[in-house]
Parts: sequence; C-alpha cells; structure tokens
Amino acid sequence: MKKLFLLLLAPLCLSAQSSDDALFIKKIADDVLQNGKAHDLLRQLTKDIGARLAGSPEFTKAVEWGELSMKNLGADRVYLQECMMPNWNRGGKDEASIVAVDGKKINRVLDVLALGNSMGSGGKAVKAKVIAVANFAELESKKELIKGNIVYYNYKFDPTNIEPGTSYGQAGLYRRTGASRAAKYGAIGVMIRSLTEATDNNPHTGAMAYNDSFPKIPAIALGGYDADYIWNLSKQSSFEVSFKTNGHFLPDAKGHNVIAELKGTEFPDQYITIGGHLDSWDVNEGAHDDGAGVVHTMEILRVFKALGYKPKHSIRFVLFANEENGLRGGNKYAEEAKANNEKHLFALESDAGGFTPRGFGFTIEEEKLKKMQAWLPLLFPYGTTYLKMGGGGADIGPLNKALGTALAGFDPDDQRYFDIHHARSDVFENVNKRELLLGAINMAGLVYLVDKYGL
Amino acid sequence: MKKLFLLLLAPLCLSAQSSDDALFIKKIADDVLQNGKAHDLLRQLTKDIGARLAGSPEFTKAVEWGELSMKNLGADRVYLQECMMPNWNRGGKDEASIVAVDGKKINRVLDVLALGNSMGSGGKAVKAKVIAVANFAELESKKELIKGNIVYYNYKFDPTNIEPGTSYGQAGLYRRTGASRAAKYGAIGVMIRSLTEATDNNPHTGAMAYNDSFPKIPAIALGGYDADYIWNLSKQSSFEVSFKTNGHFLPDAKGHNVIAELKGTEFPDQYITIGGHLDSWDVNEGAHDDGAGVVHTMEILRVFKALGYKPKHSIRFVLFANEENGLRGGNKYAEEAKANNEKHLFALESDAGGFTPRGFGFTIEEEKLKKMQAWLPLLFPYGTTYLKMGGGGADIGPLNKALGTALAGFDPDDQRYFDIHHARSDVFENVNKRELLLGAINMAGLVYLVDKYGL
Repeated sequence: MKKLFLLLLAPLCLSAQSSDDALFIKKIADDVLQNGKAHDLLRQLTKDIGARLAGSPEFTKAVEWGELSMKNLGADRVYLQECMMPNWNRGGKDEASIVAVDGKKINRVLDVLALGNSMGSGGKAVKAKVIAVANFAELESKKELIKGNIVYYNYKFDPTNIEPGTSYGQAGLYRRTGASRAAKYGAIGVMIRSLTEATDNNPHTGAMAYNDSFPKIPAIALGGYDADYIWNLSKQSSFEVSFKTNGHFLPDAKGHNVIAELKGTEFPDQYITIGGHLDSWDVNEGAHDDGAGVVHTMEILRVFKALGYKPKHSIRFVLFANEENGLRGGNKYAEEAKANNEKHLFALESDAGGFTPRGFGFTIEEEKLKKMQAWLPLLFPYGTTYLKMGGGGADIGPLNKALGTALAGFDPDDQRYFDIHHARSDVFENVNKRELLLGAINMAGLVYLVDKYGL
Repeated sequence: MKKLFLLLLAPLCLSAQSSDDALFIKKIADDVLQNGKAHDLLRQLTKDIGARLAGSPEFTKAVEWGELSMKNLGADRVYLQECMMPNWNRGGKDEASIVAVDGKKINRVLDVLALGNSMGSGGKAVKAKVIAVANFAELESKKELIKGNIVYYNYKFDPTNIEPGTSYGQAGLYRRTGASRAAKYGAIGVMIRSLTEATDNNPHTGAMAYNDSFPKIPAIALGGYDADYIWNLSKQSSFEVSFKTNGHFLPDAKGHNVIAELKGTEFPDQYITIGGHLDSWDVNEGAHDDGAGVVHTMEILRVFKALGYKPKHSIRFVLFANEENGLRGGNKYAEEAKANNEKHLFALESDAGGFTPRGFGFTIEEEKLKKMQAWLPLLFPYGTTYLKMGGGGADIGPLNKALGTALAGFDPDDQRYFDIHHARSDVFENVNKRELLLGAINMAGLVYLVDKYGL
C-alpha cells in the first residue's frame, strides 16, 4: 500500500490545458448529477426485467431493452453481436436441512443456494454425514473420512484485508473448485460458507466448475448464520445433512452483446471500449452486479451526447453477455475485434458495483500509468483517490489477451459489495442514486482524458 | 478542491519512526477488524434502547448503558457529568392531509414529522391555503399573500454539490428559521421539503428555533415524494392542507455526559477528547446519528486497552448529551474544562455517520495542519484520503471557543447520510459493520499520532 501511495504522489504538474479539462469534467459532473438517467435506467433493468441469467427469457428482454435504450440515447449506431451462451438452469428451489445430530433425528432447515453451473442431486436428496473443514489443508488431512459423505468448507473471509475484494479472491477457490476436490476423495455433495462477511443469513451463489476426472457432485452455499451454526455444531457433534438441488444445462442459447458507438472525429478506426455485463445471476435483480456497470456505461453515452462531445477516437459502449457463468460475450467481442483487425486503444469496465468511487486499477505499461497519474487532481474532486497498477474486468480481459489493449477497472468502495454480491439482496433498493452517478462521472472523466490525450 | 488537493500533496517525508507507526496502526486495524465490538455495541444501543431524545427515559437508559459499557471496556475512570437539558416532546403522531384542491374537497394523506422544538397546533388542526415558495426570495416576493395561510418551502438540495453536507448546510436555514420568517408575514403554519435527496418518502425532522418577535407557528417536514407532489400541485392549482402536531416543552430534564478516561503517562494533565453524542431524535434508532460516533468512541477505548497502549496524554472518551436540540452536553463539557483550568490539546468528534472513511477536517493553525498532513500515508491504507482545513463537531465546538482547543471531525463518505439523517430509516440495519469499524481504525490512528507527536 505504501507503493500505491507513492504512485499517488507521482508528478502532478498539470498542463496548460488542465483548467479546460477541469471545466469540462465539471460540466460532466453537473449534467450527470442534474440530468442523469442511470438510476431510472437501473430501475427499469432491475424492476421491469429483473434476474437475467444467460439463456433466460429475461436475458433476451434485457438485450432488447439495452438496444432500444442506447438508440434512444442517441448513439451513432447500435447493433447486436451474437454469441452462443451456456444455459444453466437452477431447476427449482434448492432445499437443505440438518436431519440428524449425534444419531438423533431433527429437521433444521438451512437457507441455501446451489452454486451456478453445478449439477443437481438427481431428483432425490443427497443425505449423508458432514465432514466440516476450515480449508483445503484440513480436507487433505481428513481425506480418509470423506468417502460417501458431504464435505462442508468453512473458509472465511480474512477480515483484516482492508479491501474485501482481496478476501473474495482468496475464498473464491472454495466455490470454484471445492466440489471436485472433495469428489476426488469420494464426497457425494459439497457445501460452502458463502463468500461474504455479511451480517445476515443470505446464501450467495456464483460460478463453479467441475474437474472432469471426478464425479460431478451437487454443491450448495450457506448463509452466514447457518454457516456459523454448522461450524460450531461440527466441533461438538456428528451430524447429517440432506439437500436437494436441481441444476442442469440446457442446450447452449443464442445471446448478444449490445454495442453502441460514437464515431471518432480524428481516429475513427481506433476504439475505446466502455462496458459492463448485462447478465445477472438468477436469484436477484443484479442491481450492483452488474446493473450498475450497465447503466454507468449508458450514462457516459448519455452525457457525452448531452454535452455535444465529439470524441477523437471511436467509443464503444458495450453491454456484455454472459459474464457470470461463461464469459462468452467478452470472448466474442475480443475474437471479432481481432478477426476484423481493429485497433483497440483502451477498455474500461465497471463490474464492482454502484458504490461511491475510490479509484481505478489498470493493466497497462508503467510509463503510461505514470502519465495518467498526472490526471488525478482532475478526478479527485469527484471521488477518485488513486490510479494504480492492477485491474481491468472479466469482459475486457480477452481484449488485452488478444490485442494487448490497455485496461482499467473502475473501483468503487467495496466494503458493502460482498454483502449483496450473488445474493438475493442485490436489489435496486440497495443502490444509492448519488453513489451510482458519481461512478459514471469519474468513468466519463477518465475516458474523456484518454480520448483527448491518448495513452 | 484544488487547494485541498495541493494540501494532500504537502511534503510526505516520513520520519524514522514512521515504520513503527505503520506497524502500530496495522495492529489497531487488525484488532478492530477481528475483535471490534462497535457493531455489537451499536446493536445494543439501537435495538435494546432505541430512540433517545434528551429528556426521554431512553436517554437515561443510554447514559447507564454507556457508563457500564465503558467500565467494562476497562477505562481507568468512568464518571457522569450532569447538565440540564431541554425536554421537547412530540406529544403524539403528526398528521397532515391535502384537504381541498381548487375548492373541491379531497383527503390525500401526507407523511410528515413535526420539526424538533416546534410548538404543536394547539389540540386542533391548522387548516389553510398553501403558499408554496422555492426559497426565501420567493417568500419575500409573495409576502402580501401569506397572512392566514400555510407557507410551504420547497428549497431543494443542490445535486451538483459533490458533498451532500454542503447542500444540507444551505437548506438547513429553511428548517431552522423558516417558521418565524413566514410567521412574520402572518403565516399560521409552515411546511418544508425534508433536508434530503433520498429517493423515498420518509420525512426528516431536526431542530428549529423561533424568533420570539413572531408567533410560534407549528412546522412540519414532508418526505420527497409528497414534497414533489405538493410543489407540482402548487404550479397548477390552489389547495388547502390541514395538519395537526403536538410538540411541547416539558420542564428541563437532568442529563449527563458520560466520560471515560485513560490517564496519560507523560502529560496526565493534558487532555485529548474523543466523542460522539448519545442522544438521538425520537423517531429513529439514531444508528448513524450518532450511534456510530458513540461506538467509534468506545471502540477506540477498547482497542487501546486491548493493545496495552499507554497514552502520553490523558484521553477522554465522551458520550455527549443533547446535541440534537440543545447542545447542553457539549457546552457543559467546555464550561467545566474552563472552570477547572484544564489543558485540552485536541478534540476529535465523529458525528457524520458510520460510513466508509474519507478523511478528517480540522479547526487548527495552518502550520500544525501541514505537520499532520505528513501522517497521511500512515492512514491512507485504511481509507483516509485527506487531512484538510475546516471541520470539528457540534459537541466539541465549545471547547475550541472556550480554550482554543484544536478540533477535528471524522469525515466518512456522506453520499448516503442525508438519506437517513433524522428520518425513521436511521436504523441499525443501515449501518455496515466493516464501514463502521474502518471509521474507528482511522480515528484511533489519528489520535495515536496526535498523542505520540503532539501538535
């Protein structure tokens, strides 16, 4: 963090144009705060459409809504980019109970969600003794006990990580790979502590994947209270859990990235991409994840049009398909860019929620980042406190791999993000209008500066 | 803001001790994030006690709770400092309706709260035509129309202020002085748009005061939707409102500041004060305002004891009485300090909510602030992004006036604060545990540095 701070203090001599830039960014801010549509658009996306997992009818509705909305916002061109998407379906309500403690039958219902992409329990319940472990090391030490049983991973967020995103990265391994690592030793089902520090009992879903070498066992996430209960119980008793899930894949579905363009005046064949992802998990409104990124993207289009801003580079505003459980939209976008030999200068993603701004993280050459850090005083008044190395976004990552495009990710304050991330509580009511608009202002300011000065 | 940024970039050469300081502040952070009690204490204060306006039985309970809790946290000494407090009572439910539009009777119920310290409508409803004005200038231009009518002030937050606290300062005049300014021209009641940009209909109370030269007319606040409705209605129709409030003052009540001390090892007769206010409005749990400040204060005591920190200066942890509608606790504390000829080096208040940290604002000599700004890299990892001129707190203000004590106010991010401030929605559920704890960490870090290096 010391290093970050020194970066923050990199030379900050502003060029002669800086007061013009400050004025233009103030215009952006005033217009967004007075006339911004991001909050209304988010209400439409979350309340009129709602959950929109890839392959669902709602995802198709969201594509139609995105296309129409961006046309209405006055883009020079709006078009759809087709891609095939995995089509995982939860298949009904996930159910789980503790059914026996020390041999005595009980029925304590647990609030659970099957992990995304996981296979259901095959029409009947998985019922077995639970082997509870704190982490993979403990799994290994107990591998002889696992056969025929259910493994419970209690891996917790490390509360001393100042950014919960760090904890999420660490704990994410258990959600993504925990099932197969347990199946390797004969487990017939897996449960994880949800990837959250929330002080509630909402379970959090999210993508997992199987290692094809082992049986594809069902996998569920528990909310925080139930996780604590089970973990404490495991310290004093032997117990059984029964759970039933219904996840399955339907044939791949046709989906689309929604792409709006403002044509560049000087470098029309060089692209700047701004985006978020249009899909969400099936259990919530995807308001922060990633409704916020979708409407940030649309708001920047809106304000550039409202202010009559004519970008030097062509700017693409992209609502990506299928980030959550396939990344097919982001991959398709990069494939097409490469196939068409497009030049992509810069891509910026918002996929960390609609919270108050903190900064931007970059995947870029050190020298270029240093140059950009001179812009910090222009964005600081609106909440940006750093421009640091490290960041981007899942959907724009393939563009960097395919074409070496410089990336940035918008970093809102993430203290609350993992309270609602992939849980039922990621709803419109948990997004604050001003925090949402401030995100769009800082992103628009950064894109304006990149467009004006290049990298 | 440009000036602020330059201050932020003041010389940042860290002294040789800085790595020791970084380590100690990391210890504070780790302990607070792992073992912090602030969230649990806030649950007790908000859920077990609840609303605690000065003079209410709940305020007395809060004093007892604060005293016992700070004893349990291991303070060297905990004592109560008596003060008399105003004892305003809402006297029942506030009621209001639009009862006629263009002469036609209707009954559209409005969600309202009487302003704090306002006099009720005397057992019967105030019923009259409404003269709606955008601001005081429009009031003056319509002064001939006001006699016998109700004045409605539609003064709105300026959304282009990046910090809503600025807007609150501007709009606050209407709440505090609007009634008497309308009564001067013969108004028989006053309504204001609540001091908020919240996207809901909660009315927000808060202190007002009368000018004794004019009749003490009843005064209410409307929620955002009702305010919009009335303002739009006023543009096209003549309409009447009827409202009934019951506010009154009981005889002054005995109250107390709760004071805990850690005795200084080098300068036991020089004090550093950390505080928040224990009272809240009567309509909510006072979770952010100022339960957060109360538990920030207690958490700093807890972590200093947990780490065995022996301060050089004596530190007082003060839960102030009666900030909301009288400031008698803050005044009493300064009076006693002056009467006892105490030396007060520094006072820090948290009374802006339990949100994610942004920085600190100071009332201090410029040279001393510059010195403190060298500490910024030590606090930056935990969320502090500036140490700027301008700030303090209502309760510690009198200490500065009486003794010239240097002041600081903790500035959390305030984008959400005025959504819930003085409204029914200021409840425990709207406080995020991690954001709350981060506030305590940054405050504890600043106090540690002031204690170690002086000013």
